[in-house]
Amino acid sequence: MSRSHAGPVDPARLREVLDGRWAHIRKSARERIDDKFLPVYGESGEQARDRVSRLLRELPTDLGVTAAFPVEYGGAADPGATMVGGEMLAHLDLSLMVKAGVQWGLFGGAVVALGTRRHHDAYLRDIISANLMGCFAMTETGHGSDVQQLRTTCTYDPDTQTFDLHTPHPAARKDYIGNAARDGRMAVVFAQLVTHGRSHGVHAWLVPIRDDDGAAMPGVTIGDAGPKAGLLGVDNGRLTFDHVTVPREMLLDRYGQVAPDGAYTSPIPGDTRRFFTMLGTLVRGRVAVGGAASSAAKSALTIAVRYGDARRQFAEPGAEREIVLNDYLAHQRKLLPALATTYALHFAQEELVSALHDAQTATGPVDEHRQRELESRAAGLKAAHTWHATRTIQACREACGGAGYLAENRLPALKADTDVFTTFEGDNTVLLQLVAKGLLTGYRDAFGSLDGWGRATFVAEQVREVVLERTAARSLIQRLVSAVPGRDEEVALGDRGWHLRMFEDRERHLLESAIRRLRAGSATKKDRPFDIFNDVQDHVLKTATAHIDRVALEALVAGIERTTDPAARRLLSRVCDLYALSTIESDKGWFLEHGRLTPARSKAITAMVNDLLKELRPAMVTLVDAFGIPDEWLNCAILREEPGRQEAMAAHDAELRATARASQDVLTGPEVLPAQ
Amino acid sequence: MSRSHAGPVDPARLREVLDGRWAHIRKSARERIDDKFLPVYGESGEQARDRVSRLLRELPTDLGVTAAFPVEYGGAADPGATMVGGEMLAHLDLSLMVKAGVQWGLFGGAVVALGTRRHHDAYLRDIISANLMGCFAMTETGHGSDVQQLRTTCTYDPDTQTFDLHTPHPAARKDYIGNAARDGRMAVVFAQLVTHGRSHGVHAWLVPIRDDDGAAMPGVTIGDAGPKAGLLGVDNGRLTFDHVTVPREMLLDRYGQVAPDGAYTSPIPGDTRRFFTMLGTLVRGRVAVGGAASSAAKSALTIAVRYGDARRQFAEPGAEREIVLNDYLAHQRKLLPALATTYALHFAQEELVSALHDAQTATGPVDEHRQRELESRAAGLKAAHTWHATRTIQACREACGGAGYLAENRLPALKADTDVFTTFEGDNTVLLQLVAKGLLTGYRDAFGSLDGWGRATFVAEQVREVVLERTAARSLIQRLVSAVPGRDEEVALGDRGWHLRMFEDRERHLLESAIRRLRAGSATKKDRPFDIFNDVQDHVLKTATAHIDRVALEALVAGIERTTDPAARRLLSRVCDLYALSTIESDKGWFLEHGRLTPARSKAITAMVNDLLKELRPAMVTLVDAFGIPDEWLNCAILREEPGRQEAMAAHDAELRATARASQDVLTGPEVLPAQ
Repeated sequence: MSRSHAGPVDPARLREVLDGRWAHIRKSARERIDDKFLPVYGESGEQARDRVSRLLRELPTDLGVTAAFPVEYGGAADPGATMVGGEMLAHLDLSLMVKAGVQWGLFGGAVVALGTRRHHDAYLRDIISANLMGCFAMTETGHGSDVQQLRTTCTYDPDTQTFDLHTPHPAARKDYIGNAARDGRMAVVFAQLVTHGRSHGVHAWLVPIRDDDGAAMPGVTIGDAGPKAGLLGVDNGRLTFDHVTVPREMLLDRYGQVAPDGAYTSPIPGDTRRFFTMLGTLVRGRVAVGGAASSAAKSALTIAVRYGDARRQFAEPGAEREIVLNDYLAHQRKLLPALATTYALHFAQEELVSALHDAQTATGPVDEHRQRELESRAAGLKAAHTWHATRTIQACREACGGAGYLAENRLPALKADTDVFTTFEGDNTVLLQLVAKGLLTGYRDAFGSLDGWGRATFVAEQVREVVLERTAARSLIQRLVSAVPGRDEEVALGDRGWHLRMFEDRERHLLESAIRRLRAGSATKKDRPFDIFNDVQDHVLKTATAHIDRVALEALVAGIERTTDPAARRLLSRVCDLYALSTIESDKGWFLEHGRLTPARSKAITAMVNDLLKELRPAMVTLVDAFGIPDEWLNCAILREEPGRQEAMAAHDAELRATARASQDVLTGPEVLPAQ
Repeated sequence: MSRSHAGPVDPARLREVLDGRWAHIRKSARERIDDKFLPVYGESGEQARDRVSRLLRELPTDLGVTAAFPVEYGGAADPGATMVGGEMLAHLDLSLMVKAGVQWGLFGGAVVALGTRRHHDAYLRDIISANLMGCFAMTETGHGSDVQQLRTTCTYDPDTQTFDLHTPHPAARKDYIGNAARDGRMAVVFAQLVTHGRSHGVHAWLVPIRDDDGAAMPGVTIGDAGPKAGLLGVDNGRLTFDHVTVPREMLLDRYGQVAPDGAYTSPIPGDTRRFFTMLGTLVRGRVAVGGAASSAAKSALTIAVRYGDARRQFAEPGAEREIVLNDYLAHQRKLLPALATTYALHFAQEELVSALHDAQTATGPVDEHRQRELESRAAGLKAAHTWHATRTIQACREACGGAGYLAENRLPALKADTDVFTTFEGDNTVLLQLVAKGLLTGYRDAFGSLDGWGRATFVAEQVREVVLERTAARSLIQRLVSAVPGRDEEVALGDRGWHLRMFEDRERHLLESAIRRLRAGSATKKDRPFDIFNDVQDHVLKTATAHIDRVALEALVAGIERTTDPAARRLLSRVCDLYALSTIESDKGWFLEHGRLTPARSKAITAMVNDLLKELRPAMVTLVDAFGIPDEWLNCAILREEPGRQEAMAAHDAELRATARASQDVLTGPEVLPAQ
């Protein structure tokens, strides 16, 4: 570091801070994961499915992927361990991580959360051991985001005490269902429950889809979604039901029951509220996808930063100095702000996993408000992590040039596998609207915040006084913000309180103006309710992303507060400066429009960001080493080969200089003799 | 269109404008391309290579891919036809397009441009017929962008009148060489020419690498770059030479000759200038890559826009209206500005191809200034097209959700195949620096502008008074710009002259300030020449992109001027409004910082962009239909299936409504019975 700081930072000190509450899971994974789990390249789709299917059953227990299940059936009642174990698995193989998430998070998780004791007793042990492979069959070809409108029906017949599960037309087929095309023997199938001639909304049943010989059950048609852009090891399939008989007991009946005579009962009145309560219990899937995206971004950055530290480019004629990619300002701009954002989102994820764990292991009645906030936070961070990952991996691929396009250098798989994360487990745009709705209504929406955009009058009536709740390290942040002078121009650009206040003020302003516009729209566009929202959709989405930016900044600030090693603390503080200022710089148009930056201050921010890049450049490798991804896990040819290659080139060039005659062509350009 | 315009626009009228000077090539391709060239999904790498290799030899002549060659050998002396034929081929299969580009553009092109008559007589007919498959072996593992520093040597021995071609160490192996791993029998190999103990810089030789049985020639080791992220049909390989004997006559000797006694002569003094003159003749490769990227973006937008017009999402309860994806503001923001940019870049490409054709078919001495401008324009547009394509295809994939992730819907291949375009045929960042250098020096750099960043003092001395040259429809643009009042606030946001002036003023300001900063740096950082450039690298790159934005805007304005159909002209004018205003909006921070926008005007621009999106929404499908991509070429399952699927869903829903009993749960949310 070029300032007067005490020496370089030991990546191990940073790693301790990053490893967090479930550090033991991370350390165990680093030390003990067998080579068979390392990334593989060049497989066919069939080979990938075979390998992933086999490896799923060989995952070590101490990785934690089944830890969330109740102890009684083989779990550890430790949802946090499952989340963090998933993050480690995501460094190794994203298909395996997704398949594990389908099997245990979605399928097993649905049986736990939506089923009752007799389902748990009958199936959970086999699910946990992977003896019983299963799917989560909610999405239909015709309904993805709008799942409350799905069309599969399941109609009760009191005479036989069975349900009739039916796909009424081709668009209602279950689609993109992981574990369906090859392995699944049962599926949790979501359908509209109809009894006594009346629908009670979407419920879930446990339905056998394959017999022990692997043949489809009667009435069940299993199709294959075919080759995909990535996640080749996940067997996504399609399920169609032709009047399939389902015993009454197979209804997962925690939230809705059907008596033998067909009478329907439920502890939750209202189809919509019941459906979203059911969905809410599946929040872990969103947290897991966010964590996997975070891991993928870290893997990509580790590769790009280390390569950029080795790879020489355009050596300066006549200079002693070797220039490597990481020395270029444009290269730093590609990688360093993304690295800073990765740090901020990491700490936000750590807090989310912790909150999730505490909520899911708490006893006593569910705190509705807390649950809504958790769902909202999970949705917002899932969107942030996955968009950040796909953009960062893209930048890392470009930063590695042609080498980044070769499968053997890992980046193609990282890009292809994570690409779908922005639209599955919730389309990011829809998730941001969920976040916005929570902000607009203070999480007081009695319907739960997971529904689609609708009910204009309802939302307009519910919007209230805007009070931003601080998310982390509340008292510290309150102190920092309060200490900031009233006039922006008097504050140093590096003032943390000023950073926090800028983020807060932007969020507050966006929220207040969104509320004003929605109310105005409700008054003037009564005949066009769709337009009330649609006309401000961009504004609403920006409100949500501003909120998430603040969540990330506050989490990073809180993380720094917990850091005891002084050198690590100082480095993280500079990283935080970069995160805050590059985020403000990216949105300087908004801040200038709203009088929160003067033109001079805005230009000064750009200059300071460039200064920060220079300052952090020597620490780039330390910052990625701190992620603690074992080299073998990266399985990246250029990382193995480039340093040695550069050494050999330098040695060869030195030989040439020692033995060559001087060229007479000295005035016209570089010689074949290498610049030195 | 919602304004008082005369009726809808016939896509055929738009298509005529877009098809341009080589419309006959495009029409012939649309009507006559055989089904065997249609996209294929789910192949292994081996299958893709086999198919592409076979199809290369079956491409119809009237597609134009070999038209650039001299008539004498089977070409048509029509470089424009080759460029446009390549754009059409890029709609079908990007591996095939790239392989054709390697075989005829790079390999064949190098033989034409760098060789002399005896090379042409001996090889061109076989190259054109694809009987002789060849590679372009320039890039090395250790040197990609910095090719002037490549390490392969080729040393002349007068006693044997042969050269010794040698790879001095592993990092000097030729890498990422298309047509090498499977098919190539000869290669144009670039190496440092050494004779009489002295190097004369990089030259090219025609070197057999495989014999007629497919075995590697003595001393030649052929490796495989292995699986890649995309372009599976291109057999990228690695070439290592172990003291391979190359006859003297195999030197491609247009720009440098070696006499039997080893004496070197050249019409161009100076190794660097000679090298870049040689490279300059290969400008067609950059134009071709830009054109292919343009085609890929158009294919992706066609899919996403048509799907978004069919796919219903969150139907509004109780309303008559069906809501489809394209009705959402956020969806429009994903697709429409990208569509407008695609139009602007299309017209810029049309002009570039025309200029290239005219330059390459001109007789008489080469106009150096014109050549430099052409190289610069090709570099800048290659960067713009390829970044635009990869970002647009990403957005289109997300706009199509899970369906966009399935290979059968084309988007995965478009994304994977085009991903490398941003870093091959010139890394985009390096290309932008080339553009900037041309702007800074008025193309007066006697070295040619293709070299890497260097020679600080030279550049600083050469920078001159900034005069922006208008690129297209000069007199029209001059009139429009001159008519704009002095004060921005007095001008309507839709004023075309104001758009042009904003783009011009930004470019001029960036250029002038870049010059000031470079001169200041030259004075104060003499001891650190690398920092003179590096500290302003972001500024310099932005100058280049601002220039390219202006090139694109002027080309679109000129294209509108050529449009005779009134309805088409009005539609294109709105598209141009959207391109101009969304580009300004994206960079509003800069414009606000530099006093070219007030906060109020900036916010008004956002409002106007949203209005334009609404206005253009009904024309989205027309705008992509105008690209004229035959449906079969898209080979996209959702385009075939989604409209029918939606109809079936609507019919099914209508049946349900007709026969269902009303639910009593009316106060709590949507029923299973579909909304409306």
